[in-house]
Amino acid sequence: MVSKNQIKLITSLQQKKFRQIHNLFIAEGVKVIKELLDSHYELEHVYVTETFFEGIDAAKITTISDTDLKRISCLSTPNTCLALFKIPTTKPKKNNGLIVALDNIRDPGNLGTIIRLCDWFGVEQIVCNEQTVDLYNPKVVQATMGSMARVIVSYLDLEKYLSKTPLPIFGTFMEGATLYNETLPQDGILIFGNEANGISKNMEQYVHHKLSIPRFGNIQKTESLNVATATAIFLSEFKRNTIEK
Amino acid sequence: MVSKNQIKLITSLQQKKFRQIHNLFIAEGVKVIKELLDSHYELEHVYVTETFFEGIDAAKITTISDTDLKRISCLSTPNTCLALFKIPTTKPKKNNGLIVALDNIRDPGNLGTIIRLCDWFGVEQIVCNEQTVDLYNPKVVQATMGSMARVIVSYLDLEKYLSKTPLPIFGTFMEGATLYNETLPQDGILIFGNEANGISKNMEQYVHHKLSIPRFGNIQKTESLNVATATAIFLSEFKRNTIEK
Repeated sequence: MVSKNQIKLITSLQQKKFRQIHNLFIAEGVKVIKELLDSHYELEHVYVTETFFEGIDAAKITTISDTDLKRISCLSTPNTCLALFKIPTTKPKKNNGLIVALDNIRDPGNLGTIIRLCDWFGVEQIVCNEQTVDLYNPKVVQATMGSMARVIVSYLDLEKYLSKTPLPIFGTFMEGATLYNETLPQDGILIFGNEANGISKNMEQYVHHKLSIPRFGNIQKTESLNVATATAIFLSEFKRNTIEK
Repeated sequence: MVSKNQIKLITSLQQKKFRQIHNLFIAEGVKVIKELLDSHYELEHVYVTETFFEGIDAAKITTISDTDLKRISCLSTPNTCLALFKIPTTKPKKNNGLIVALDNIRDPGNLGTIIRLCDWFGVEQIVCNEQTVDLYNPKVVQATMGSMARVIVSYLDLEKYLSKTPLPIFGTFMEGATLYNETLPQDGILIFGNEANGISKNMEQYVHHKLSIPRFGNIQKTESLNVATATAIFLSEFKRNTIEK
């Protein structure tokens, strides 16, 4: 059973304002919840219709009906469980390896896909400017498929961060040097810009190396690559040289 | 002004069944419509609120109100124009270069992104099995951002096609050889499988070269890559060697 007040609280967490007030976010589905339980995230409460999670304090589990789950879920086809986790404070810890910086990424699906890519390619740190879509937006949480358990995403004054880092900064620009021809280091910051406008002028001034993915199709016409697919190609290219042939 | 019957016809085209009956599909937005006008697609009719297209038979243009556009649009925030184009008959023409084969891709956004990637990397032919999401689904048309004007997408008996092609067939498999270490040809078929299940057994038997993208993160836990990002990495890898250093 979920009370009216609980329903009100949980559904309010679909909005960033209320996530910040309550310091909580929603995760849905067995896979995502299990991965978060097995990470640095702290469980507040889990609502289940049939799935059981082992090793959780019984006071933190409520069994509810399918109808109640539908009331609190953000999904059009709700899963069997919904959990609330506490929002941790995250400051960027790493100052080596590859770090992905996001400048005004607005689409929740793109952020989720980029986090999955970082997880795959062993990038442990993402830094975002404050205008980038919120990690704890339920659509982002869902799109990460649990990868957010292993990749630290921090929101900060990105311009200040870039101005102070000792690491080389790489950015994607239409007129940049061919990605495939460059010697790419194992430590560095890769910055990706907004879906419509690319990397903003404020950030561009800090980029040491402007790179581009060559276009093989009709140069006059081809639409630019989606930011998540560009991230895929960049991370693959930075990592491929670390493999022994 | 749009008549009730026209509204009924146009909205019915959101369903594949009616697209096949009427042999028409919907495209929305100036950019997508312009690219299709400038391609092999044949315009049936265009409805505009303010945008004007040059060089079109006046009988094929109807100026309508914002309210009417909202009635016929598939978008939650309609653009300024909606066009109907005829569905062409497409048989795969190419038997050289890179060809992308899709086995049960179900998500419209994924198909749209893959078409954009093919456009970028100069892949002119995609072959799909019949269960792959329909190219003329309005969400796919929108996601291609006009790239479908330059990439031929054919639906066919994929198993038969693969069994008869003289080209080498490459597929993505978890246990495949490391993509980065292989000598990749300029002619070949790259097959990508369903979002949840990968390449089906029926198709797998025709794959000559099983490849995988190495995973650099936690091998036990990392979620598999999304099919569109995997396609991005594969196409980049097949094409990078054709660039002179």
